[in-house]
Amino acid sequence: MATIKDIANRLGISVSTVSKGLNGASDISESLRQTVLDTAVELGYTTKQMRGKAQKKLCLFVENMEYQNPDQFGYDIILGFRQSASRENFDVTVTPVTPLFQSTEKYDTYMLKHGYVGAFIIGFALQDDWMTQFNTTNIPTVLLDNYIKKNPFVSSIGTDSSEGIDDAIVHLMTLGHKRIALINGSRNSMISEQRRQAYIDSMTEHDLPFDETTMPYGYYVAEAAKYHVGNLLSMGITAILCGNDLIASGVIEECTLRGFRVPEDISVIGFDDLPISAQLTPPLTTIRQDCITLGKCGFFSLNSLINHVPISRTMLRPQLVVRKSTAPVAD
Amino acid sequence: MATIKDIANRLGISVSTVSKGLNGASDISESLRQTVLDTAVELGYTTKQMRGKAQKKLCLFVENMEYQNPDQFGYDIILGFRQSASRENFDVTVTPVTPLFQSTEKYDTYMLKHGYVGAFIIGFALQDDWMTQFNTTNIPTVLLDNYIKKNPFVSSIGTDSSEGIDDAIVHLMTLGHKRIALINGSRNSMISEQRRQAYIDSMTEHDLPFDETTMPYGYYVAEAAKYHVGNLLSMGITAILCGNDLIASGVIEECTLRGFRVPEDISVIGFDDLPISAQLTPPLTTIRQDCITLGKCGFFSLNSLINHVPISRTMLRPQLVVRKSTAPVAD
Repeated sequence: MATIKDIANRLGISVSTVSKGLNGASDISESLRQTVLDTAVELGYTTKQMRGKAQKKLCLFVENMEYQNPDQFGYDIILGFRQSASRENFDVTVTPVTPLFQSTEKYDTYMLKHGYVGAFIIGFALQDDWMTQFNTTNIPTVLLDNYIKKNPFVSSIGTDSSEGIDDAIVHLMTLGHKRIALINGSRNSMISEQRRQAYIDSMTEHDLPFDETTMPYGYYVAEAAKYHVGNLLSMGITAILCGNDLIASGVIEECTLRGFRVPEDISVIGFDDLPISAQLTPPLTTIRQDCITLGKCGFFSLNSLINHVPISRTMLRPQLVVRKSTAPVAD
Repeated sequence: MATIKDIANRLGISVSTVSKGLNGASDISESLRQTVLDTAVELGYTTKQMRGKAQKKLCLFVENMEYQNPDQFGYDIILGFRQSASRENFDVTVTPVTPLFQSTEKYDTYMLKHGYVGAFIIGFALQDDWMTQFNTTNIPTVLLDNYIKKNPFVSSIGTDSSEGIDDAIVHLMTLGHKRIALINGSRNSMISEQRRQAYIDSMTEHDLPFDETTMPYGYYVAEAAKYHVGNLLSMGITAILCGNDLIASGVIEECTLRGFRVPEDISVIGFDDLPISAQLTPPLTTIRQDCITLGKCGFFSLNSLINHVPISRTMLRPQLVVRKSTAPVAD
């Protein structure tokens, strides 16, 4: 378990200041106190007082998503959720699940058996068993990037992909690009279908050419680039939007292998703004999702449902972060 | 100004209990204390302590909406907003505006001049001058039932009309109705266009007949019924959805005048669930919006924007409240 010294080191402040923050002393600022508490949650440090207060239990179910270290997409989402939950004295258990697990254990049964009063669901696919059960559950449940119709016990949280994709396409247009492709995420995912539609809408609105071959699925892995980049390059595509930053890193590598320079010959845009994005060569232009805030708003929605406030969905704005992987189209 | 006794009378508790609630005494429950404070806000009672704390100023701009008494649509929205704002020590000024006012004073200028750090905007129409200015403002602004694209300083709050309208149509179908009309709200309103689309989508999905003549606009006033009910009845319509409860009350009256009984001959469904709905003859089946919660979530979004959290939109679930104005279709 982390010590007070670990928190002090992380924040670059003294052990006595950390101690004041943890104990609610009056001579440090409220914002520093909150930063100390947030860092304690991140590092897994708990005081006897924090443990004594926590009574209500929440479960955070993860599937199809890496979250173990700060470079991975799920890390900040889970951290933001846990930090907000901690302020309201909820205990959070992070539970990885598989399709097999879902087929052997009913959602409601699992929740009741473990005494959870609500759940945050991230990374689930449309065909998952529990997705059907969410239509009728009466346990407060919030889903990231999935939407359940008409059930007032379930709420949705996500980032508005359509604005992000349109921002990216407009950015590429101002650089002279017309032949723009989208290597999307996974099939059977609500978010992939929304982004596909956003790409179709934006390309149509701006009178740019596209068809089935310019919007393949990439399954969120860097290897997807191998299967698609050659084809897209041979079609005369000059810019590639990607379903996440990992696909974008694979696209840059594959372009380079084939003798195409990024951004001189091909512009590449990622999605998410993972910590690696700024470290790539060239640094990646990408559509940023604020993952800490997604987690925090996920908790807010869940706490609202627990208090009988039927929030249906909350969407956050994406932000186009322009770095060096996009440039004017080659002559 | 209200007195402690007014609060005690409203809640049916003793003056000393109210006093304990206002002064944060430890021997009353947290939930009762909050109820006392919420009621103090509603009645306009402030303690010296409450006045001393408030520093940050918000403005709530109202147009095209009645809000002066509890029977009117805007009352609970404003109350919920003020109650949540009060808990976070914000002062709220409610300011009615007109199109003329908007054309003589710029939004940003007005906000800066009066020292407001954010605004909640309710009842605005698409063609209002300020609606264009919201595209570029960098002052935290939340709009009820209007959406501004791509501006991270602006957020939207509303109720998901499409689920409510589909619930209402499904309810009517189970009663055997096929010829269902929608007397909508005002033209030039985002919410009216969404409800029109929701009606079209739901009627299409359920294979029910509709055309331009079955979805006229009613401008949120009871008098609208006079212009439309005769025509709809002559077309063989057996059920009428209305853009709000006032239109529905007018429809019931107009049907009765023309010798049609509600619900035996014609079923009628309102929107909002104003306090009058349950008092009508017959009591009105209606699509409920939780207005207190709309106000509270409006404040949450605004406070998030003030803290640089770019919430784009928050939607609440509607709830179909079935009373006596709907019945099986006549033979």
